[in-house]
Amino acid sequence: MTNRVFNFGAGPGMLPTAVMEKAQREFMDFKGIGASIIEISHRSKDFEELLNDTDRLFKDLISLPENYRLLYVHGGAQMQFSAVPINLMGRTPARKGLYVDSGRFAHMAAQEAQRFGEVQVIASSQSTNYDHIPEITPDMVDQDAGYCYITSNNTIFGTRWNRFPQTGTVPLVADSTSELLSRKTDINQFGVVFAGTQKNLGPSGLALVIIREDLLGFAPKETPNLLDYATYHKDHSLTNTPNTFAIYMIHLVLEWLTGQGGVEAMEKVNNQKAALLYDLIDTSGFYTAYARPQDRSIMNVCFNLPGEELLNRFLKEAGAQGLYALKGHRALGGVRASIYNAMPLEGVRALANFMKTFEQKNG
Amino acid sequence: MTNRVFNFGAGPGMLPTAVMEKAQREFMDFKGIGASIIEISHRSKDFEELLNDTDRLFKDLISLPENYRLLYVHGGAQMQFSAVPINLMGRTPARKGLYVDSGRFAHMAAQEAQRFGEVQVIASSQSTNYDHIPEITPDMVDQDAGYCYITSNNTIFGTRWNRFPQTGTVPLVADSTSELLSRKTDINQFGVVFAGTQKNLGPSGLALVIIREDLLGFAPKETPNLLDYATYHKDHSLTNTPNTFAIYMIHLVLEWLTGQGGVEAMEKVNNQKAALLYDLIDTSGFYTAYARPQDRSIMNVCFNLPGEELLNRFLKEAGAQGLYALKGHRALGGVRASIYNAMPLEGVRALANFMKTFEQKNG
Repeated sequence: MTNRVFNFGAGPGMLPTAVMEKAQREFMDFKGIGASIIEISHRSKDFEELLNDTDRLFKDLISLPENYRLLYVHGGAQMQFSAVPINLMGRTPARKGLYVDSGRFAHMAAQEAQRFGEVQVIASSQSTNYDHIPEITPDMVDQDAGYCYITSNNTIFGTRWNRFPQTGTVPLVADSTSELLSRKTDINQFGVVFAGTQKNLGPSGLALVIIREDLLGFAPKETPNLLDYATYHKDHSLTNTPNTFAIYMIHLVLEWLTGQGGVEAMEKVNNQKAALLYDLIDTSGFYTAYARPQDRSIMNVCFNLPGEELLNRFLKEAGAQGLYALKGHRALGGVRASIYNAMPLEGVRALANFMKTFEQKNG
Repeated sequence: MTNRVFNFGAGPGMLPTAVMEKAQREFMDFKGIGASIIEISHRSKDFEELLNDTDRLFKDLISLPENYRLLYVHGGAQMQFSAVPINLMGRTPARKGLYVDSGRFAHMAAQEAQRFGEVQVIASSQSTNYDHIPEITPDMVDQDAGYCYITSNNTIFGTRWNRFPQTGTVPLVADSTSELLSRKTDINQFGVVFAGTQKNLGPSGLALVIIREDLLGFAPKETPNLLDYATYHKDHSLTNTPNTFAIYMIHLVLEWLTGQGGVEAMEKVNNQKAALLYDLIDTSGFYTAYARPQDRSIMNVCFNLPGEELLNRFLKEAGAQGLYALKGHRALGGVRASIYNAMPLEGVRALANFMKTFEQKNG
């Protein structure tokens, strides 16, 4: 077997080693047909079966309520920054979207939405550089709006919503790119949940969109066909050729996740992994966590060291020990350990041990 | 080695076996970094080098003129059915696109464009079910239009443009999904050439767009950010995470193609492959070619047999002999042999031999 590093990259991120091995084994020949999964038609029986089974696994894992639809949409999460306002602003005459500015991607989503109608930022943590999740009370949610938009986990700053806001009849929309399937979540709280697939689900170049059925059909007629959720729904996401490799890989990841005991079991391990790092940081006096304790992400752990010189040495020595891609996002600096579902507890333990030793030598 | 079939599927299609083998070998570990190419950041040095080298290989292979840009765009060819009018209709006050309706995909593109402005179909071969390419004379091209749109190779009906129309100052736009890099083409004839990647270039879920630089910047402000060509140009196609696996596979395919002697050498083999089938069909009295001789595609060879019963037996027996996915598109029926760059001459010979034997037994 290859000598794989522990990959703490924020995305495209590490995939489970067992999944990667299976994909490698059957790369030249999918189910004995003599061709790769990437070389066969999206309208072939073999691919349709795969797509249907991916649906089934996903719906089971997330306990998808009957009145929700699952779409496989082109373009990653950022395409949804456009698709959400295009599809939902027309739900009410106000043509308005509410945004909670809890990080860089929420900010970008709000900017993008301005192309399509009125945008109201109802709360922001920008003034403290997104170190926490703003508080939302029901009176802040204008009931004439088409939707209320949040980023459920902020990859760059390592914060997440622990309790989702109450938005009344206004559908709550969540960008869950960096945490979908990492914790048990009641989908009934949302109108739309979407995720770029390159963090917790598979490779890049695709987004999963979960949408409540009654929210389909509000896109105006000048909507590009492949940005209209109703198109994907009507065609079971096969309007044109989807990213078949990504769907195949997601299928393998969902099979793996089911084998691990599902989302609940995964959440337990994820909590353990995150606690291991946060506890070490909080008791160290050397490392400093970035996010306020009550809003900390269990997927992206952001922290810093006392000074740039130590930080650079930390990143260099970690890299040399097979702890890969720990450098924080350029918007924040410091260290970011992305510990998605695929990161084993063993990898986090290796990082924790490295951190302890590094502190002893340099603290 | 795996027992690979000869895959005549129209797309996602066969990729060169040498490319598939290399991808399989390094699937778990890209260049010794201990992670897969699909598990690393699109902003990492390793990926940026790959992207730059893909650019270089492509530009060399196609002799891309200095004033053209190469973009890697989300969503496959059908997203371009929207992107082309969005980006080019605003080039002139008329907000108008001209379309040549030479097949199903050209027809769909013209329909989609109606969302964004005026569409004028200047010629069509629909009345004879697209068995030829309509003739275009310069006087048919309204010089006030933003662009003139063609499908350079019609995958479903097996026709192609052998000489491209003269459109004066109106930029010619070509959907070359099923033939890019299969024949020597002077890019200077075009304003835009695009191709979904899943036929001659790599796996699905991405499009390459070649655009003359002066055509950037005409998208209206209500354009979804990731449908604006200027966005991709500004960000070197890294606005968000692209389909990194597809780019990696395209890089391998372009390396392979360069090793084969480039587009000119490939065109020679492609002509040989197509001639082998068309000659057999034309001299048989049993098989009937679909496309008119002067407009025949060298990528998709469409033909039929005398009667449904023989057709079904043909497809079944071919499949049993490892000649895969020969069934014609549901819009046409019959047989379609897609013989993209990756299909070796050996595979076409195997098909030709099968056809001869089948005719002897059943003719």
